[in-house]
Parts: sequence; structure tokens; C-alpha cells
Amino acid sequence: MSTDHTAALAADRAHHIHPFSYPGEVRAGRFRRVVERAEGVYQIDTSGRRYIDAVSGLGCVNIGYGREEMAEAAAEAMRTLSFHPTFWECTNPYSARLVEQLQRLTPDNMQHFLFANSGSEANDTAIKLVRWYWRLQGRPGKTHVISRDMAYHGMNLLTASLTGLAPCHPQFGLPLPGVSHVCAPWSWVEGTAGDDQDFGRRAADALEAEILRLGADNVGAFIGEPMQATGGVVTPPASYWPAIRRICDRHDVLLIADEVVTGFGRTGAWFGQETFGFNADITVMAKGMTSAYFPVSAVALNARIGEALLNDPGELYHGYTCSGHPVGAAVACMNMQILEQEQLVERVRDTLAPAFWRHLHALEDHPLVGEVRGMGLGAGIQLTADKVSRAFFPEDSDVDAQVTGHCYERGVIVRDLGADTVGVMPPFVTSEAQLDEIFDAVRYGLDLTLAGLNRA
Amino acid sequence: MSTDHTAALAADRAHHIHPFSYPGEVRAGRFRRVVERAEGVYQIDTSGRRYIDAVSGLGCVNIGYGREEMAEAAAEAMRTLSFHPTFWECTNPYSARLVEQLQRLTPDNMQHFLFANSGSEANDTAIKLVRWYWRLQGRPGKTHVISRDMAYHGMNLLTASLTGLAPCHPQFGLPLPGVSHVCAPWSWVEGTAGDDQDFGRRAADALEAEILRLGADNVGAFIGEPMQATGGVVTPPASYWPAIRRICDRHDVLLIADEVVTGFGRTGAWFGQETFGFNADITVMAKGMTSAYFPVSAVALNARIGEALLNDPGELYHGYTCSGHPVGAAVACMNMQILEQEQLVERVRDTLAPAFWRHLHALEDHPLVGEVRGMGLGAGIQLTADKVSRAFFPEDSDVDAQVTGHCYERGVIVRDLGADTVGVMPPFVTSEAQLDEIFDAVRYGLDLTLAGLNRA
Repeated sequence: MSTDHTAALAADRAHHIHPFSYPGEVRAGRFRRVVERAEGVYQIDTSGRRYIDAVSGLGCVNIGYGREEMAEAAAEAMRTLSFHPTFWECTNPYSARLVEQLQRLTPDNMQHFLFANSGSEANDTAIKLVRWYWRLQGRPGKTHVISRDMAYHGMNLLTASLTGLAPCHPQFGLPLPGVSHVCAPWSWVEGTAGDDQDFGRRAADALEAEILRLGADNVGAFIGEPMQATGGVVTPPASYWPAIRRICDRHDVLLIADEVVTGFGRTGAWFGQETFGFNADITVMAKGMTSAYFPVSAVALNARIGEALLNDPGELYHGYTCSGHPVGAAVACMNMQILEQEQLVERVRDTLAPAFWRHLHALEDHPLVGEVRGMGLGAGIQLTADKVSRAFFPEDSDVDAQVTGHCYERGVIVRDLGADTVGVMPPFVTSEAQLDEIFDAVRYGLDLTLAGLNRA
Repeated sequence: MSTDHTAALAADRAHHIHPFSYPGEVRAGRFRRVVERAEGVYQIDTSGRRYIDAVSGLGCVNIGYGREEMAEAAAEAMRTLSFHPTFWECTNPYSARLVEQLQRLTPDNMQHFLFANSGSEANDTAIKLVRWYWRLQGRPGKTHVISRDMAYHGMNLLTASLTGLAPCHPQFGLPLPGVSHVCAPWSWVEGTAGDDQDFGRRAADALEAEILRLGADNVGAFIGEPMQATGGVVTPPASYWPAIRRICDRHDVLLIADEVVTGFGRTGAWFGQETFGFNADITVMAKGMTSAYFPVSAVALNARIGEALLNDPGELYHGYTCSGHPVGAAVACMNMQILEQEQLVERVRDTLAPAFWRHLHALEDHPLVGEVRGMGLGAGIQLTADKVSRAFFPEDSDVDAQVTGHCYERGVIVRDLGADTVGVMPPFVTSEAQLDEIFDAVRYGLDLTLAGLNRA
């Protein structure tokens, strides 16, 4: 590609409506970053400046950027079978091998797989399957889906409705009917000084209350991220998910685990369900499935749901053009091969996460830090105006954005998640020296932000 | 990749829920086709047998399979920038160049672009933007969307609701509320022996009647494919789309053109709107954008809608992880470069389509053929039990599947679209000799099917 990007950037500025951006900033040409290349944990901008990407893109580039094996796997598949629909009982060795590898590497409650292109699309597919399942059981009224505050489940009209982040709704008149939200297990706000495990059970009880309010005959499923990444890395106590599983069983409500962020190693196990001690009926995966080298997502069903659907003698009237794309399948298989051969999940669990949490716990004494929470290589740093009362900063203070801005000056990308939370989610190939750099920048950012607050 | 696919195929059979397939067939190991590689217009199965793919995969592989330039463009981008989010006012040269090329090659009514991964997702995004637009105009009640019978707009809960193919709804309890369907401009069923242009206007009037029934204050948009591909290659007379445009303007209803199939040359122009003489407010594109080498889709807005949205001072709370993916952008740019350098759109218009239609018109005398319809390199062959009364065959006769089955015996893949229609949609790189082969097979299939019917 030519190195003169002037014309392209002018077109981008004038004609590209960027996701999750301020259009006015883009139109004024105030790009936050123009990234020319990326390798390992680094993004390199057009001026040659290098940044450690301590949020793995969008919590997805788990194996790091620009790996030669991935480029070769993609090119080989593109030369051999650049596209092939798995419609009409057709298949191909790439798509078939993806199924084989997934079935081998995922927990036993993931037995049947359907493919899509994004996490949004896979969550939407999961809800379609819930509706199909209950219709086959003779209970077509079970269509309502319960989600949670702070949840992120995607951006389609339905999945954006499931998303529980308030700013995502009013622009589009959401949520759609048939969706409701219960509280997140966010102990920083909802918890007390009492027993943490008791808090987990109480947070789960909110689901049961909502099922009873709606009537179990109307509720098809509950959907939740094992750890709510985008919504502040909200991480439940160990009692939460087993209680949710019991409540779902008690009321015949299907349990969907949205593992788009937690899947493929983020929490130190292949799936968050292993870390948090439960088995979902339906599991959704995306980002980490290919480390975002290619858009691929999947919905996995346990044997009970899968068998029920497969016993329908009719044709399945569902699927996307690129479902199970052979190139995406090759890329996903190479991504899994790298995770296995380099033992990256084990590396997260045994080496990186312990070092990561030493750094995080060392921040707890900082005057701005209320708590650090998360699991594996995913953490939220909760800032607070008062450590005792757990007070938030005023709405317009943007204190988390100040911290991320200062980190950026030091060449480290972390993410302001809102609600005074800074998210850190580095790639699995981050070195311990790079972790030191990341947390040097975080501490620098906290100190500078505190100094600014004290001056004000 | 290893040439022994036994284990992978066993896993596929046991664990893969295939799109638009009969699960029972797959579980029994009755794969219709196991495709090992593809080149040009050919799919080659694991036994080495070659098939001309006369439906371009799913109406998407316009430049043909396995092109080296595409594999190289993908690999180069993957090495350089394997992923980069265009969130938070960030950009990169690949995504920017895609915007530049799209803006140059698309008609003037496509001025602002947002990206997604699939046609479903782009249509869903279009509906979100309609809702945003009307809220900004102070008319938040304008949320209802009118679609048509026979329409195909995708498979998400919302876009599957917009889809007007009856079998796609009951499995999932669709359509969702807020969607309705008016008649397609399907002259074979709806038309009379009278003036065809008059039929086009009457079919458009159904939209106006539906707007009046619902109240224009409740209707946000009308969505339609310029030519309804999946639903039988339903092709309107020239009077239809200009009449639709006038009706939308009269009632302040946005016009969305779903150009997922027609975009990038299928009708002999870059976009179907040029062929059918209208300008949409919002244009959706996908398949032909990359010839399905990589999942990329886009929503294009005209200046009026784009400016209105961009003047919202707030942040846009919408986007997908892989929106504007750098590798997808590189692949889309190379696809457009191939279309331009090889003048494939002109080739469709000036050379291939005329030859294609000579073959199609030659079929009109066949006793089984009621009509041939379509545009450019897309056609539906309408079979009929009676050429005069235009009678359909009995529901269970599957006469279109019989024809496609016989074509398959001759090494040609065409598609049974339902409603006694056989779809033919070859790649733009098909040679005239290959067109001869395709239509030799079609005639063979028609003759054998007719002989079978006469025996019965």
C-alpha cells in the first residue's frame, strides 16, 4: 500500500461515519490515532510512534497482531477455497475441521455448533434458537429474554436491546419489547460490607424475582457474560453463577453465556464458564475465536438443546452467507493451534495473570482507586471520589478518560469504560517487562489525574 | 491441509448444524457435496469432480474463486494490520482507502458509509439509522418498516422479519411487531395480460395503501431489493421504482435499497438503482463487495440523511468490532480494482448478459417454461404446469429441485428458489463457452423433468 495516505484520509474524514465516535471530531479531521501497522502487542501510527495495546484491540487480539502463520493460513485457504456456503447439506474440509477442533477444545456442554460473523449476530442467532426450541416444546409463549444492567451483547436492534448500557438505547428508541434487565452483580455499587458470597446469591435472586414477575411461561432465556467486560469488568463472586444456573433450572429458562470476550482464554481457562463454575445451555463466542484476524462467531448448544432442535424433521431456515466461511475457519483453526502450541491459556493462568494481579493490587493504595476487579487477563480499575463512601465523580468529570489520556501520552492504550472505570485487557503474548510498562503508565496516569483534581 | 478429511467430516456430521439444511440428512452423513477447492467458475469436490457454479456461491462470487491477487491482498494486510477498530475517532489507511474507493465508484446518492460484517447486519444497521434519523427530526413514532412478499433481507430477528419468504417465519415465531409486507411486483402472479408498465405502478400503489393504513407518522422506511434475487428473481417493470420513490417522498418515508445481491455489477451497472432508475436514501451492500472472500458489508447514506445524522453533536452509540476491518477493506479494494481493471461490469452489460439472455429466451418455447425474468447476469426460469393459466405445480412436486438435480448430474450448479423457479446467476468471469455448457445442462434438466412428468 502506498505510504501517502492524504487522499484516503480526506475521504475517510468526509465520508466515513465511524463507530462509537463523535462525528464532529472526525469531520474536523481530529483523528485520535491513524494506525499504519501493528505487531505483537504494538500499534504503530503513521508518524512511527509505537503504543502498547493494553486492551487487545477491543478485547479480541489475544495472540497479538500480525502473525505470519495467520496470514499464511488465510492466504492458503483463500487460494484453495475462497468461499463456500455450508448451506443445503454441503460442507468442505475447512469448515469441517473447525467443527472438529471446536468440539475437541470446548467444554462438554458445547456439542453442536452454528456459525455467524459477529458476536452480535451470534447472540441474535442464540435468541432465534431459543424461540425455535420453545416452539418445538409446545411453549411458544416463552419468548421474553432477561439480560442485565451493564451488559454488552451487541449492536443489532435485538442485541442492542439486550445490551444494558444506558447510552446505547435512546438514540434508537430501544430497547425493543420482550427484553428486560435485572441488576448486575456489581458489588461496588450493590454490595455491602457483608459476606461477598451472600451478595452473589442476592444478585442472582433478582433474576428469580424478574422471572416470577413476568411469569415463567413467558420467559425463554437469561443471557449474561460470565464477566461483564465492556460494562466495567463487572466480576461476580463465586456464588453467583451456580445460583443463576439453579434459578434457570427451577423455572425452565435457558441459560445463554455470552463468551464473546471471555472465550478462548481471557479468564485463564478456555471458557469463562470453567472459571466461574457453571454450564450454560447455549454459549456464544466470537472475538477470541480468531483473535479478530477474520470475523467469525459461533453458537454452541449443549446436547439437550441441540438434540431437540436436530430432531425437528424440517429444514432449518436460518444461516448467513458467510456462516462457516472456509477462510475464517482456517484462521480460527490456526488461532486455536497457536493457543495450544504456545500454551497461551496456561500462560495466562500460571504466569501472566499472577503478575498482572500483583500490579493491580499494588494500585489499591492509590488515593484514586476504589477497587480493582476482574479475572485472568481482564481487569477494571474503579476510580472513586471517596474510598469509604464509594462516591462516583460528577458525571462530567471524565476522570477515567483523563487517566487513559495520560497513559496514551506514555505510549500505552487502556480504555475508559465509563462509570469511573479504566479497563486493562492485554494480549496473551504480553511480556512481563511490557506489563511493567503498562502499569508504570497507569500509575503515571493516576498520579497526574489526582494532581489535576487536587489543583481544581 | 491434510487430504484425509475423515475425522473432520465425522465431526461435521455429528456436531455442525448447517444453515438452510435438513439436519437429519447431515447427521446421516448424506452430504450433498464436499467441496475441496474452487477456481474461477468451478467448485471441485473431494472426488475431483468439477462443477460450474452457475449461482456464484450464493450470488456473491462475482470475480470467480481463488484469485491470487485477493489472497495476496489479504495476506499483506494481515501481516501489516491484522485488526484495527475504527472506534473512538481512530482510523487506518486500509479502512480509509475503502471509503475513498467506495465514494468514487458508487452513485452520487451514496455519500456517507458505515461498515458491518454481513448483509443482515447492514440491513439491521440501516433500520437503526432510520430510527435515529426520525428521532432527530422530532418524529420518534416513525419506526414501522414496510417490506414485501418474496423479499430477502437477512436472518437476524429483525431482518428475518423483513424477509418476506413465508418458510422463514414460523420456526421462530416471526415476524416481530413493527414490520409489514406488501405485494412484490411479481407480474407472473399479480400481473395481467395488460400493459406491463401499468402493472408496475399498481404494484407500487400497494405501498401507498399500506402507508395510509398505518398512518405516515408511524412509518419510518420502505425496504426493497431492486431485483428480488432469492425470492425468485422477481424483476419489476421500469415504472415500478420511480413510482415507489414518488410515494416515499409524498409520505416522508425513507427508501432503503437492499443491494446485497445487485450491488457491484450483477445487473450490468455498478448498482441496481442505476439499472432500475431510482435513487435510494439508504443503500445496503455486502456479498459482491468482496466477492465473499471476506465478510464485509456497508450502509451508504445520501447527503440529506448523512448530514442530518452527522449534525447530531453526540457520540454515535453503534458499531461492530470488525466494522471497517483493515483486511476486509484491503480485500474489498482489490475486488473493486479487479472489477475496474478487467472491466467486468461492462463485460456483464455488453457481452455476457446479451449472450445469457439469448440462451434464456431460447428456453421460452420449452413446454415447462412459463417465463424467464431478471436483469444482467441474474435470471429466474419460471416453470409452470400450464403456460396459459400460469398454473403452479402441486406443492410437493418439487419440480424446480428436479431440474437443478439433473443439472447437477451434468456438472452445473443452479438453484431451486421455490415457487417453481430455477435461479441462474453465474460469475462475471464466465466464458461464453461456459454459458453454453450451463444452458446445455439446463435444457437437459428441463427435458428430463418433463419426461418424468409425462411418465407420471
